[in-house]
Amino acid sequence: MKKSLLMLALASSFAMANEGMWMPQQLPEIATELKAAGLALDPASLTKLTEFPMAAMVSLGGCSASFVSPNGLVATNHHCVYGSVAHNSTPENDLLANGFLAASLSDEVAAAPGSRIYVTKAVENVTSKIIDAKTAKLSGKKRVDAIEANQKAVVAECEKDEGHRCSVAAYYGSLEFYLIKQLEIKDVRLVHAPAAGVGKFGGDTDNWMWPRHTGDYGFYRAYVSPEGKSADFNVDNVPYKPDFHLTLAKDGLKEGDFVMALGYPGRTNRHRLPSEVSETFEWSYPNTVASYKNTLDIIASETVNNKDAALKYASRVAGLNNYMKNRQGMLDSYADSDFLQRKTAEHKELTAWVNSSRDNKKAYADDLKNIEKLLQQRQQQDRADYLLDNATPRLLSVARSLHRLAHESTKPDAERKAGFQQRDLPRFKAYVTGMERNFDVGVEKALDLSNLSKYAAQPKKQRNAEFDAAMGIKDGMSQAQLTALIDSWYANSGLAELSNRTALLDASIDQFKQSNDVFVKAALALYKSDLKREAADEELGGKIQQAYASYMRAKIAFMQSKGQAVYPDANSTLRVTFGNVTGRDHGNEDGNAWAPFTTLQGITAKATGEGEFNAPQKQLDAIKAKQYGPYKVDSLNSVPVNYLATLDITGGNSGSAVLNSKAEFVGLAFDGTLDSIISDWDFNPANTRSIQVDLRYMLWQMKLDGADKLLVELGVK
Amino acid sequence: MKKSLLMLALASSFAMANEGMWMPQQLPEIATELKAAGLALDPASLTKLTEFPMAAMVSLGGCSASFVSPNGLVATNHHCVYGSVAHNSTPENDLLANGFLAASLSDEVAAAPGSRIYVTKAVENVTSKIIDAKTAKLSGKKRVDAIEANQKAVVAECEKDEGHRCSVAAYYGSLEFYLIKQLEIKDVRLVHAPAAGVGKFGGDTDNWMWPRHTGDYGFYRAYVSPEGKSADFNVDNVPYKPDFHLTLAKDGLKEGDFVMALGYPGRTNRHRLPSEVSETFEWSYPNTVASYKNTLDIIASETVNNKDAALKYASRVAGLNNYMKNRQGMLDSYADSDFLQRKTAEHKELTAWVNSSRDNKKAYADDLKNIEKLLQQRQQQDRADYLLDNATPRLLSVARSLHRLAHESTKPDAERKAGFQQRDLPRFKAYVTGMERNFDVGVEKALDLSNLSKYAAQPKKQRNAEFDAAMGIKDGMSQAQLTALIDSWYANSGLAELSNRTALLDASIDQFKQSNDVFVKAALALYKSDLKREAADEELGGKIQQAYASYMRAKIAFMQSKGQAVYPDANSTLRVTFGNVTGRDHGNEDGNAWAPFTTLQGITAKATGEGEFNAPQKQLDAIKAKQYGPYKVDSLNSVPVNYLATLDITGGNSGSAVLNSKAEFVGLAFDGTLDSIISDWDFNPANTRSIQVDLRYMLWQMKLDGADKLLVELGVK
Repeated sequence: MKKSLLMLALASSFAMANEGMWMPQQLPEIATELKAAGLALDPASLTKLTEFPMAAMVSLGGCSASFVSPNGLVATNHHCVYGSVAHNSTPENDLLANGFLAASLSDEVAAAPGSRIYVTKAVENVTSKIIDAKTAKLSGKKRVDAIEANQKAVVAECEKDEGHRCSVAAYYGSLEFYLIKQLEIKDVRLVHAPAAGVGKFGGDTDNWMWPRHTGDYGFYRAYVSPEGKSADFNVDNVPYKPDFHLTLAKDGLKEGDFVMALGYPGRTNRHRLPSEVSETFEWSYPNTVASYKNTLDIIASETVNNKDAALKYASRVAGLNNYMKNRQGMLDSYADSDFLQRKTAEHKELTAWVNSSRDNKKAYADDLKNIEKLLQQRQQQDRADYLLDNATPRLLSVARSLHRLAHESTKPDAERKAGFQQRDLPRFKAYVTGMERNFDVGVEKALDLSNLSKYAAQPKKQRNAEFDAAMGIKDGMSQAQLTALIDSWYANSGLAELSNRTALLDASIDQFKQSNDVFVKAALALYKSDLKREAADEELGGKIQQAYASYMRAKIAFMQSKGQAVYPDANSTLRVTFGNVTGRDHGNEDGNAWAPFTTLQGITAKATGEGEFNAPQKQLDAIKAKQYGPYKVDSLNSVPVNYLATLDITGGNSGSAVLNSKAEFVGLAFDGTLDSIISDWDFNPANTRSIQVDLRYMLWQMKLDGADKLLVELGVK
Repeated sequence: MKKSLLMLALASSFAMANEGMWMPQQLPEIATELKAAGLALDPASLTKLTEFPMAAMVSLGGCSASFVSPNGLVATNHHCVYGSVAHNSTPENDLLANGFLAASLSDEVAAAPGSRIYVTKAVENVTSKIIDAKTAKLSGKKRVDAIEANQKAVVAECEKDEGHRCSVAAYYGSLEFYLIKQLEIKDVRLVHAPAAGVGKFGGDTDNWMWPRHTGDYGFYRAYVSPEGKSADFNVDNVPYKPDFHLTLAKDGLKEGDFVMALGYPGRTNRHRLPSEVSETFEWSYPNTVASYKNTLDIIASETVNNKDAALKYASRVAGLNNYMKNRQGMLDSYADSDFLQRKTAEHKELTAWVNSSRDNKKAYADDLKNIEKLLQQRQQQDRADYLLDNATPRLLSVARSLHRLAHESTKPDAERKAGFQQRDLPRFKAYVTGMERNFDVGVEKALDLSNLSKYAAQPKKQRNAEFDAAMGIKDGMSQAQLTALIDSWYANSGLAELSNRTALLDASIDQFKQSNDVFVKAALALYKSDLKREAADEELGGKIQQAYASYMRAKIAFMQSKGQAVYPDANSTLRVTFGNVTGRDHGNEDGNAWAPFTTLQGITAKATGEGEFNAPQKQLDAIKAKQYGPYKVDSLNSVPVNYLATLDITGGNSGSAVLNSKAEFVGLAFDGTLDSIISDWDFNPANTRSIQVDLRYMLWQMKLDGADKLLVELGVK
């Protein structure tokens, strides 16, 4: 399914107890609540992005992280550095299993290609530049094009400051746009990751679950040129000196304490329309879960006796498992809930309010009706494209992207399609290069066969004639014929080879035309219809953006008329969520509840010596000997491992620093709980808890792992 | 191991938050605490044993119960009526499995032989009569004999009021003695017990565990003669009309609510000496657990294909499993605790206090030293007798008891040994008769072989020469020889037949002498040495009683010198414990806690359709259909099944009515939690929770079982 870029950050939500992913500049508005929860600092001190503590917060693009030393050391989750650990692993030197600890700066290794550390430097409201007077009058594709052009112009201007990455993020259903300027650190190195038996302890079984005992931490270091500028990997580069970094908490965290997580939550959907809710939970998510399950089964069976291939897909398998459990968790919650009925009732209430006054009616009524029809059109298109999109081989996607890049490259940079500009080339390179580490022809063939079988089994008129022609698909093909067809693709393509993909990065349109590569030829054959589909999608997207913004404007006005404050839905920008360390009055089992902390003893209880629960023997011995060091908590009679808090986080918050009431570091957020994932759509204060790795466990385990130098760098005496 | 009767009720304890099994007359002393916990009544109203609510409380002898209708209906635990259900069960009509519900009064069936309902009528301090001036000067066996004579005299005087059972209970380590007068209802009938899949749901797996989903309730009815007097079973008997009965709570119980349990806790040992603690936890309990385990294994293998025998031993198996889990739970807690160190330190503190003043030293110092030596003697004797006592066949015990009875019966009643008086005859009869329902020769032979093998394997000088001679045991017997020996016992005894046992109830000493029964002949042969052992035991017992009472007096004086109030340890007399409905901040698993209520959904989650988790299909269907009736609790979105409270209960409290702040019935206490059983010795406020069956679950299930008439009798509209 495709969603226009503009759709990524729609919707907003409203303040509730422990609910809210607040923009830093909003914090003074909720000063009373922050104080009540226990914040000891002036909320105003959290609004300044270039001062402590906000300046210590960084994004890894998909994960959150923070500077924890004056020498560019970055703390994040193990699962956020997982790809880099996998990238540096080989069957002979399995860093995933054994962990990695650089003995010195020179032993730190390059993170996976494309790894970045983004340090937010400035945030500016650019709404009037993005939806300028001219754009406001446009509709459909023209509106999309104008918004894109304005965004590109703003971004280009911003990125004149070399070494920076700029982006425009939409808030409140594209009512507001902010320009975010980030220092883009390209030389990212892996410093330390514990053994998988610590960092991934519990594996997929424990993922999204409590009680939890995962040491989900890892460390990168940011490197820059000797002049302090953003630079590609170079042995002469030096550690980046951040203006501010976090310091470790002096007092032990305990039940009830104030905590806040500072990070980059990806996306929430708390104020979608009823039709979006039903489409998502009754069609989209069930199909996603089935598809992921199928993909995982195929990868498992294809890599069972191939450790090299297994390592290549380890990161994807982890991601798919994570998403699958997430989506299934939401589906389970949805099945038990009256969410759609409530959503429908709320929408009726909004509609009644809109129709209750002449002004409101004039301002919103048409769009409120219109948005439903437009969304239905998009849903129909998504359903029609579903099997086709799934059946697209990865090498065809590469060929299409690189061919499109060749076309866009003929234009002046500013006129190129977003995503195909000069600024995007390093990411193309990383994409093409990174496949070396995550692509195996055997696995891809098996995936292609499964997906293509489903697509090809459709009646001809439901299939895409251009795709069929380009890829050689005919009516009524048997499994054997499909297998042979797929074999012929790979036999007649060189794109599985890095050098051939790299060559296409700079290839001209003519060079593409001269290629005999099956996938390149297909990309060329599909080019016109691709553009046509894109244009149709944008035409619809522009209409939706306009009507959806209007719907959101109505909704915000309605909520404000009821005196309810509004915070924007997550959109991968820096947010603050606050709450308290606390358990839950109901647990996984009837008659159970959740305690706020787990301890080392729980590791011993779960350890099996293999698979997902393969705690290191050295760790188990230390636990048995009660070698707690200074990290013992008397009330727990042990060292705390993970803890629960009422923080409102979602995907993207992974690796977020969690700070106490004095903004001191007390751990890393790394997960939520399965029966509350639906909070991304329908916030559930009773169930929603974030799961953190306790700083004390990190330090205890690092000491055990001999990471003494790192501990000193972190300020441990 | 034998303990003198006086030892059964030694030791006392001291008031702590939620700790305390208070004598009703003590409640005004803790009025502040009761009010703080939420009691709405005047504590003074709970001190009157012949008024509401105390007059509604009854003892079943080993279990607690209460009148819940004006027509003598008695509510207690399923496991307290279990023996009576088993007694009325046959392989063809398995009431244990299917439950029992009398359609009308005339369908109510006699409870197991010996079943009694004791209604406390008066409690009087008789200390000055039991330890009168003359007795106070005696020691050893003479002291024991004098105390016993005084007790018998007081009891005999009391029991002149026909139909009553009187007893003298020792409090505070025999510093005080109370005469308790109870109406003894002998015609006890089974009214209702749910199916085992409800009443014993969870079985031994869930026993002592949380979360819990056991419908541990059952109903007896008390019958008396048409004149209202205590009478043996007779079809002309009529339901007893209690002066007072409990009424059902009008408001639903919720978390935090005040509750109190009124019942007859059996025994606690909270102020034993350090040497008693080490002996118990390091020798006695480990041996008990091993022995019970062995017995259970043998019963299981002997009854596996014999449903009749299995039914006969069902009650004993339940009891052994219960005790075994209890003792093992205490051993586990002990292993994890510093109980013995604390106990030793406390005793040092006491000793220092005793030695700190001339008066104290004079009063207590000698006894404080002496008691240690005396207890060591008893411990040595217990260890020496352990295998011998275990190896005694049940039929030999019967023969010995009946033969002793014949001897005692030659004396005037008042001079007979306690336990062998006229008043004890009905219980002898019940004992002899009840064996019909709990004795199987095959099982007993197997148990005898196992126990005798261990005894016989000892060197000759560690064995008992008189026992060996009487039973035909010789040095170095093989298993085959022991088997043959045991076979010969049963081949040459008629005591497995009811008529033969019954005949001995009235047999004279001469008739015993003429018997050729193996066990009777052995009883005669052992008689003299039995009396000698008993006398030696009493000599030691008398010394221990004297020194122990002195130690306890010192301890109480010491505690009072520190301003600490004292309540007596449990001794099977009526007590009140109060607390609140609440979960626990740590559960069975690291990172888990306990919620205060379980619900119907937990039954469905545990139900397996067989064995211990065989919930009735009708119940599962009703849960699935959410047929909650008026018993639904909104915050739980279900019907509560069991709940936790901070009540200080122990064995004997089973079946205790639990009342709310207005003394209305809200359920039945039926269990504690495995990691807090050690509270019988070492009260642990963090772990200790009582488990209750919620009144709402009882009513919901009774409605489902068609017990409409009973519901009406209980006052359900």
